[in-house]
Amino acid sequence: MIELQNLFDRIVQRVNINLRELEYDVKPFVDNLIPFDQMLKFYAIYGVTTNHLLDFHFRHSNLGGTYFLGKCHVNNSLLYKSDIRGDELKQKGEVYRYKDIDIPLVTDEGIEIENSFLVKTLVHCFSHDPETLEKFFITNTISTHYANIHGAPIDGSFLGPFATVDLTTMNDCVVGAYSYIQAGEVDHLNIEPGTLWVRSPGNFEFRYQYPQERLSKYIQFSAGRPPRGELIEFIRERKKDFERIYDRVNLESSVPVSDNAALDRFAVCKPRIQIDENVLVAQHAYLENTHMGKGANAQENCFIINSHLKGFNVTAHGGKIINADLGENGFVGFNSYLKGRSDARLTIGPECIVMPHTIIDIEKPLEIPAGHIVWGLITNSAELAENSVAIEKLAGFKGSLTRANMSFEGNGKILVDAFQARIHHILEANGAFYDGSGHVGHAQKNQNISFNIVHPYPDGDSEGMCPTIRIQP
Amino acid sequence: MIELQNLFDRIVQRVNINLRELEYDVKPFVDNLIPFDQMLKFYAIYGVTTNHLLDFHFRHSNLGGTYFLGKCHVNNSLLYKSDIRGDELKQKGEVYRYKDIDIPLVTDEGIEIENSFLVKTLVHCFSHDPETLEKFFITNTISTHYANIHGAPIDGSFLGPFATVDLTTMNDCVVGAYSYIQAGEVDHLNIEPGTLWVRSPGNFEFRYQYPQERLSKYIQFSAGRPPRGELIEFIRERKKDFERIYDRVNLESSVPVSDNAALDRFAVCKPRIQIDENVLVAQHAYLENTHMGKGANAQENCFIINSHLKGFNVTAHGGKIINADLGENGFVGFNSYLKGRSDARLTIGPECIVMPHTIIDIEKPLEIPAGHIVWGLITNSAELAENSVAIEKLAGFKGSLTRANMSFEGNGKILVDAFQARIHHILEANGAFYDGSGHVGHAQKNQNISFNIVHPYPDGDSEGMCPTIRIQP
Repeated sequence: MIELQNLFDRIVQRVNINLRELEYDVKPFVDNLIPFDQMLKFYAIYGVTTNHLLDFHFRHSNLGGTYFLGKCHVNNSLLYKSDIRGDELKQKGEVYRYKDIDIPLVTDEGIEIENSFLVKTLVHCFSHDPETLEKFFITNTISTHYANIHGAPIDGSFLGPFATVDLTTMNDCVVGAYSYIQAGEVDHLNIEPGTLWVRSPGNFEFRYQYPQERLSKYIQFSAGRPPRGELIEFIRERKKDFERIYDRVNLESSVPVSDNAALDRFAVCKPRIQIDENVLVAQHAYLENTHMGKGANAQENCFIINSHLKGFNVTAHGGKIINADLGENGFVGFNSYLKGRSDARLTIGPECIVMPHTIIDIEKPLEIPAGHIVWGLITNSAELAENSVAIEKLAGFKGSLTRANMSFEGNGKILVDAFQARIHHILEANGAFYDGSGHVGHAQKNQNISFNIVHPYPDGDSEGMCPTIRIQP
Repeated sequence: MIELQNLFDRIVQRVNINLRELEYDVKPFVDNLIPFDQMLKFYAIYGVTTNHLLDFHFRHSNLGGTYFLGKCHVNNSLLYKSDIRGDELKQKGEVYRYKDIDIPLVTDEGIEIENSFLVKTLVHCFSHDPETLEKFFITNTISTHYANIHGAPIDGSFLGPFATVDLTTMNDCVVGAYSYIQAGEVDHLNIEPGTLWVRSPGNFEFRYQYPQERLSKYIQFSAGRPPRGELIEFIRERKKDFERIYDRVNLESSVPVSDNAALDRFAVCKPRIQIDENVLVAQHAYLENTHMGKGANAQENCFIINSHLKGFNVTAHGGKIINADLGENGFVGFNSYLKGRSDARLTIGPECIVMPHTIIDIEKPLEIPAGHIVWGLITNSAELAENSVAIEKLAGFKGSLTRANMSFEGNGKILVDAFQARIHHILEANGAFYDGSGHVGHAQKNQNISFNIVHPYPDGDSEGMCPTIRIQP
């Protein structure tokens, strides 16, 4: 597997060249992170549907265990058990509005991954960079376990485990473990682990910093060692359940699914699942003893266990919900970890927003009142009070505010409006509002996908590399 | 699935145009032969290896259940559960000797299938037509269940079930069920069912004609009905065993296989199999309670049951051997059906040649003496005497001979030499003589193949059609 080794070395070198200003060496972090023989074990999958763009081009890459939908070109890259989800790609002829400028698209948008190494990373399409609307690039970048690269072109960067880059164009940055960045455009930053940073230049800026020591219980990542901590353990304990769904070619689901709901064939369904209409359960989601109300969704790498989500709940990529009851119209952001206990359930009132990368880990029952926004690390009601605010109150706030590890500056209403518009968009895109004809979304479009399986070369110098594959309609 | 219907209609029309001189209409034979919804059910497979040419191009075709290896371009065709085996393709730079002319190949040979409908057909590469050495074409052709197109470019033709075209360039012909044609070049013929025709112009001509009524017990094919008869029933009864091997992505074999033998992962292994060194068991072969001696092989669509094949036995594509013991260096030709019984075993001495399309169906034990060649329909020792000759005796024969349904004319030695050279070539190509370094063949090269899976569009007008797929190294 000499080609695989050479490719790995080359990617590491490219990332380091990009990070030279930060004097950052990714090599000790990624050496042996995924042993090469592990990369040979799993097959990649691409979806074939009549409802999505279909354009794949895989060249000189290892794709082990990765899931592709839409339009995606991969060149000289290692994509290990990642999700490359191109089901919201902009299409030729569409017009993208940036401030007061209408920019027409001259080609279909495509995800282009080059010289990059993505480990268990979720990539969701739709570049928000007005400079590269057609080309959602991921170049010279390494991302590690359960990172999210979401509508965010990225070059020359390194993402720690559970890091999320969302609606951000990023150049030459290091993003620490469990940091969430939604900041428009950023360059040459080294962002420490556990940073939440939501910024709309001229409008608002929200920051929260996890205390490093408390965060390390959940996730730690240091040179020379794989990521560890409770988040990693939680997923590892459920690994076996995913193996089964990969072993069969045509897996019959034992869960009844409404005509207008989509349960991906690569999702895990443990006993006692109820899926109401217009629900979307994406690949690599995990459901156990859970009721998903009308229009609710569970995105990639979600775990929803012993819980009840009422209608129109969004659980974003990587959200984990255990022993919890969520009221209607709730939002749980990326990689959040909401952990009630069987004797201490977590109750979230309707219309709540759980910010991305929130950890709630309680030993006594806790209730988040209706219409609140919460963030950061919460283990009891005192921390809840500190790390939450009524949405209505925030919408009326203008100015600067510092509270515990959080700071806010700007116009609260713009932040609230932006979040609510986005949640509405997500529900709409997911097909939550489908009424039999209008508002078609992923829940309806993803019901019928056939999957093709890609294995790498089994031996020789090319062992582990996939052949060149081009798929078009 | 309107595109699938249109494609089917177009292929039927093209074949009929080619057969207009014979006033032959294939439509009633092939309408509903394979219901369209059946074509959607199965995935196609292509092998990825470092030991074979890798060049696939699939365009506007249904490939349901088909197996591909090597270099194969498919355009506007329906390939249903077929085997397209390109593991003996000639390569660029090789020189093909035709009589006293050396023809260098300017490109790698490729199988090119266009406007054709192949049902459960075995296609094996290596065009023997000196006019088209690089392009093994199958165009405007329909072949039905368990036909073999073997090193035989073919255009505008129709093959009945279990028909074989071997080392023949064929234009605008109809080949009846269970007919075997090895004739160099043929045009505009309508060959009745159960014809065996082996011809080397200027050297020899062998013909045998099955009595139609007796053949119909084994295979019948008429307009408006699917093929039927004992051969079809025999395979149908074992269908379930094939389903299991398709359901799993990575199937662990429970049969121990020597380092220098290859047991394809899409072969069926029932209990009590012994596979000695240098054995090749191809995909879609079926073994049950059988011992395969050193260097023996079982090719596609073979069934070998309750039998013992000593070393260096060749069972060609579609050969069936039940309750039989074969001495060393035997050859069982295409689609032969050798059926002993548990209380009436068939014994075949060493160095025997069972001609392609031979049926032996006995109620009392029968022994074919060493060094004999047999053909046609044999149900007892009297028929064996009529339908066999000592190879040594045939090699000394020159002239004309008619016996029962067989006629021979020409030089027996040339026929014997040709057969023996070919058997030696098959053993060599299959790796039967591998000694740890030299004589590498399929048994060694095919040990390590990874398989990629192709499904068609799941719905819409394109339902059942595969997207355009291009695979190269």
